[in-house]
Amino acid sequence: MTKKTVEFYFDVGSPAAYLAWTVLPRICAQAGARIDYRPMLLGGVFQATGNHSPMTVPAKGRYMMGDLERFARRYDAPFSHNPFFPINTLTLMRMLTALQMRGDARMPACADAIYRAIWVDGRNMNDADVVAQVLQAAGFDPAQLLAQASSPEVKERLKAVTQDAVARGVFGAPTFFVGSHMYWGQDRLDFVKEALEQHA
Amino acid sequence: MTKKTVEFYFDVGSPAAYLAWTVLPRICAQAGARIDYRPMLLGGVFQATGNHSPMTVPAKGRYMMGDLERFARRYDAPFSHNPFFPINTLTLMRMLTALQMRGDARMPACADAIYRAIWVDGRNMNDADVVAQVLQAAGFDPAQLLAQASSPEVKERLKAVTQDAVARGVFGAPTFFVGSHMYWGQDRLDFVKEALEQHA
Repeated sequence: MTKKTVEFYFDVGSPAAYLAWTVLPRICAQAGARIDYRPMLLGGVFQATGNHSPMTVPAKGRYMMGDLERFARRYDAPFSHNPFFPINTLTLMRMLTALQMRGDARMPACADAIYRAIWVDGRNMNDADVVAQVLQAAGFDPAQLLAQASSPEVKERLKAVTQDAVARGVFGAPTFFVGSHMYWGQDRLDFVKEALEQHA
Repeated sequence: MTKKTVEFYFDVGSPAAYLAWTVLPRICAQAGARIDYRPMLLGGVFQATGNHSPMTVPAKGRYMMGDLERFARRYDAPFSHNPFFPINTLTLMRMLTALQMRGDARMPACADAIYRAIWVDGRNMNDADVVAQVLQAAGFDPAQLLAQASSPEVKERLKAVTQDAVARGVFGAPTFFVGSHMYWGQDRLDFVKEALEQHA
C-alpha cells in the first residue's frame, strides 16, 4: 500500500476531536491521503498517562470554550458547547469499534451522527434513550449496535487500540500519525498537512 | 492613547513564551501595534489556578519537545531545550520587574539576554554565578540588579501583576490580551495578529 495515510485517534467526547473530524477529510482529500480511523477511549488514555481534560482547570476550561469557538469559525464548522459535558463515551466508542470490526463502511457516518448530536445539537448522549434516537435517525439499529458493543471481543479491541495509542505516545485527543510523526490537537492540522506534503 | 496594544504576560522559564518573545515584535511592527510587557511569575499562576506545566505529564512533555522544535523551525528561531529545566525564575522575574518599575528602557534587552541564555545557549540560570555572567555580558550590573530585585516594592509589584493576570483569566504563559480578548500560547499568535487587524 503506497497511499499516504493519516492515523486518526479520536473519541467522540472531545470537542477538539470533533473539530478535527470536520476538517481532516478535506485535508486528506487535497493531499490524496486516506484516513485510518482509530476509535479509542480518551478516559483510558488520561488514566494511563496521568493527563486530564483541560476542562478540569476552571480558568483553562473557560478559555477553551472561546478558543474552540474561534477555531470553529475559522473552519466554518457548526459548533456549540454541550450542556451535558463530560459525556461518558465508553458505550459510544464500543459501538464505533463494533462497526469497524465487522468491516461496516458506515462507521464514519455513525461517528458523524454522534459527533453532531453532541457538538452541534447539544444532545444528552449520557442518556441511553437519546443515544437510541440519534442512532435510529442516522439509519442504525440501536438495539443491535448495543448488543454488538457489549461483546467481549469489542470491549477487548477498544482496550487494545487505546493501550496501543498510549504505547505510541498518545496522551490526548485528537492525535494524528503521519508515518512515525505524531501530532496532537486540532490546532496542529497544519502540521499534518505539511507532513503529508513532505512524507509522500 | 489610540495606538493598538498587545499586553504580553510572560515568564522567562517557559519555552513557549520564549518562542512568542521572538515572534511578537515582528507581528506588532507589521500591525503598527506596541507591546505592553507584563512580567509575571508563572509558578504563581499555576498555584493560583491549579494548572501545571505540560512537562509534568511525561508523555505530554516528550511530545512538547518536538512540538516546540517544529514551531521554532517555522519561526526560524534558534531554540534548544534547557538541560536544567525547570528554572526557578522568581529572582529573574523580579529583576525584570525592577527594571520596568524604574522605567529602564533596557528591560526587553535584559529579558532577551535571559531568554537566550536559557532557550538558546542552555545555561543553568538556577545558578547565581551564571546569572551574573549573563547579565554582565548583556551590559547590566548584576549586584545592583539583584539588590533592586530584593526590594519589597519589587516583590509586591511582581505579586500584584501575577494576581492581576489570574484575575483576568490567565492560567499559563505566554498570554496575550488585545483589548478584552485573551489568547493563550505561542500557537495562537495568528489569532493575535487577526485581532490586531480587526480591533483597530
